[in-house]
Amino acid sequence: MHIEVLAVGTELLLGQTINGNAAWLGARLSEEGHEVVAHHAVGDDQAMIVAALHLAMGRSDVVIVTGGLGPTADDLTREAIGAAVGVALDFDDETARLLAARWESRFGSEIPVSNFRQAEYPRGADLLQNPKGTAPGLWMETGRAVIVALPGVPREMEGLFDGEVVPRLRRKAGWVGRRVIRVIRTWGLPESTVGERLEDVFVVDGNPSMALLASEAEIKVRLVADADTDAEARALVEPVEAIVVERLGAAVFGYDEDTVERRIHRLLAERGWTVAVAESITAGLVSHRLTNPPGASDVVRGGMVVYATETKVDPLGVPAELIEREGVVSEPVAGAMASEVAARMGADVGLSITGVAGPGPAGGVDPGTVVIGVAGPDGTTMRTIRLPGDRERVRRYGATAALHELRRVLEQG
Amino acid sequence: MHIEVLAVGTELLLGQTINGNAAWLGARLSEEGHEVVAHHAVGDDQAMIVAALHLAMGRSDVVIVTGGLGPTADDLTREAIGAAVGVALDFDDETARLLAARWESRFGSEIPVSNFRQAEYPRGADLLQNPKGTAPGLWMETGRAVIVALPGVPREMEGLFDGEVVPRLRRKAGWVGRRVIRVIRTWGLPESTVGERLEDVFVVDGNPSMALLASEAEIKVRLVADADTDAEARALVEPVEAIVVERLGAAVFGYDEDTVERRIHRLLAERGWTVAVAESITAGLVSHRLTNPPGASDVVRGGMVVYATETKVDPLGVPAELIEREGVVSEPVAGAMASEVAARMGADVGLSITGVAGPGPAGGVDPGTVVIGVAGPDGTTMRTIRLPGDRERVRRYGATAALHELRRVLEQG
Repeated sequence: MHIEVLAVGTELLLGQTINGNAAWLGARLSEEGHEVVAHHAVGDDQAMIVAALHLAMGRSDVVIVTGGLGPTADDLTREAIGAAVGVALDFDDETARLLAARWESRFGSEIPVSNFRQAEYPRGADLLQNPKGTAPGLWMETGRAVIVALPGVPREMEGLFDGEVVPRLRRKAGWVGRRVIRVIRTWGLPESTVGERLEDVFVVDGNPSMALLASEAEIKVRLVADADTDAEARALVEPVEAIVVERLGAAVFGYDEDTVERRIHRLLAERGWTVAVAESITAGLVSHRLTNPPGASDVVRGGMVVYATETKVDPLGVPAELIEREGVVSEPVAGAMASEVAARMGADVGLSITGVAGPGPAGGVDPGTVVIGVAGPDGTTMRTIRLPGDRERVRRYGATAALHELRRVLEQG
Repeated sequence: MHIEVLAVGTELLLGQTINGNAAWLGARLSEEGHEVVAHHAVGDDQAMIVAALHLAMGRSDVVIVTGGLGPTADDLTREAIGAAVGVALDFDDETARLLAARWESRFGSEIPVSNFRQAEYPRGADLLQNPKGTAPGLWMETGRAVIVALPGVPREMEGLFDGEVVPRLRRKAGWVGRRVIRVIRTWGLPESTVGERLEDVFVVDGNPSMALLASEAEIKVRLVADADTDAEARALVEPVEAIVVERLGAAVFGYDEDTVERRIHRLLAERGWTVAVAESITAGLVSHRLTNPPGASDVVRGGMVVYATETKVDPLGVPAELIEREGVVSEPVAGAMASEVAARMGADVGLSITGVAGPGPAGGVDPGTVVIGVAGPDGTTMRTIRLPGDRERVRRYGATAALHELRRVLEQG
């Protein structure tokens, strides 16, 4: 089914709240095989809510509204749905009883009368009781689209969606098909090069459809196929996936949720190895990212943040004369940092990163210069790269580059 | 002016990317005194982009489009604007030259021909050159609204918006007054408590207007005043600011861009002190955040990421019997970590954090338990806190709590 998501709340327009509900619903609805055709956000303004409902009802099968179901005067979703569909609001005695009982058990006092607004609903709507909050959700079949209203609090919205809305959507769609989503992760090629290599197989609206997603210099290729069964959907994806993988070659490093951090964990675990990190320019970001996945303690020993030059000598152990001779941002120093941190931390592999984040140059080295070292049982490798952008970007992309350099060395080893 | 924001990208509808651009633009446009009336997001689908443009152009003064300006076949914003306005696409030779030069300096090879799509623009649009990326933005006056197109990459979008779009919007609005924005930063009070203490002075639509912004357990109070001169606008803000500061007391730690990291830098610099960090649970995030502001090397020596328990003993130097007796997540161990890291790194002050991020408990300690230590010339303090949420949130909020604990100790010393 074609579905649109409408978020209600002035705080969204003012940027005080990021609309994470829309992303969450988008992901869940896609998994359920629906096509989300638009997200909207409007303020606590009845005319704007009604206008958005009319637009969405005119072209989609389902409109899911989040927010505006609370007890205060600026919660207008119930009234707006009534106005958009052309029905009056009714009052549900059972909901009112539940609201009063919940208030009393929670606050030990009588419920303020204004809260009973939450027992109102557009005539003809089903109430979806909300175990995690007070405002019930709504499911309303209209002459055109189905309108679903859910609370704006993410925890409540998610609970009601999974518990009450998903089963109703499945019955409504009568759809028994399956959707397969495959994400192919690449590193090291610019987006436009990926696009060119795939140009003749790139079909935005095909089955599978193809899209490129860029984040922090990683380019992902996403394939989405719909079919009656998982096996048929997979059979649609596989030949296209094979072409993508062949065309992008060594740039492909993972699939689906397989981030570079998880890939490194697996490569280390396969060998029974551990890693330690010595960081100057990124000052802890590489270690932090390496420990993001649960279970990190099996493969990550720890690291040293050697921000001041003297700390690279003591406690890390890089010879002072090496730094003096080669400069602190140099391949010999990066190599020594990698092997010394492995020794200090009792790890099998050492990863190091040093460089100049900027804003200005340092020690005669231009900002954006980054040197990465990897020292392991099979030897030490170093690599110098140049990164564009400001201080923050150089540090962030430098950390990503260091992780990929470690992955690359582990894959070759 | 009434403004709508339209984000283009199928990844938004699928929930693979959260639309942070809309929130960022909403906040900035509000600061500039504009009224954001709706956010929209549609996929890489020309008909849907055109429909959204028509809707917004029919009722608002400006439509800001983000995304869809890249070089690949699914980047359709240029074509959609042309179709919505009814003009052909022209080709800008100067942009093409810039694209080619930037590509060559970065990759050392000739630019793929497909990239020249980024030099196309709807006839009549001004090109906004993008110093941080390749795709230029667009500013297009139509018979109805102004259409602005910006890249979807946040860093590029933000730079172009502040550098090129804001001055044009000001000229367009003909606004010659001055706006003063004052942000009062607090830590340690729940949002609802801040709201209650300010209830009688809280005026959303006043001059100054007041808003509460919550991020990572810091609550900011934002005051915005408009007047003919800076002095008049400041005179509107100051009495309200004084009330806010008095009501929130010791929770106030900074103003405007004065983050906790910058505040720590200044407190250390005033004393001529340096800091080093020992991290277990956050594994580098505290060090990384402390080095975010430029000039960090004046006050940050470095740190140790002691993720595996043995690394807390060697190389950090916490006595093994202390860990054995007290447990790795304990105040005595946090205190020893802080003083040992200061000694190892030659710093005046040591900051430490240890804890259990989860998902499960570890060593009999519940996830969310975090212990922070600060060791300095005036002694050592320890604090145990409990943080709600998942692994990632515990780590993020734990790092923020550690920074505030260091700030608190430095302020008292």
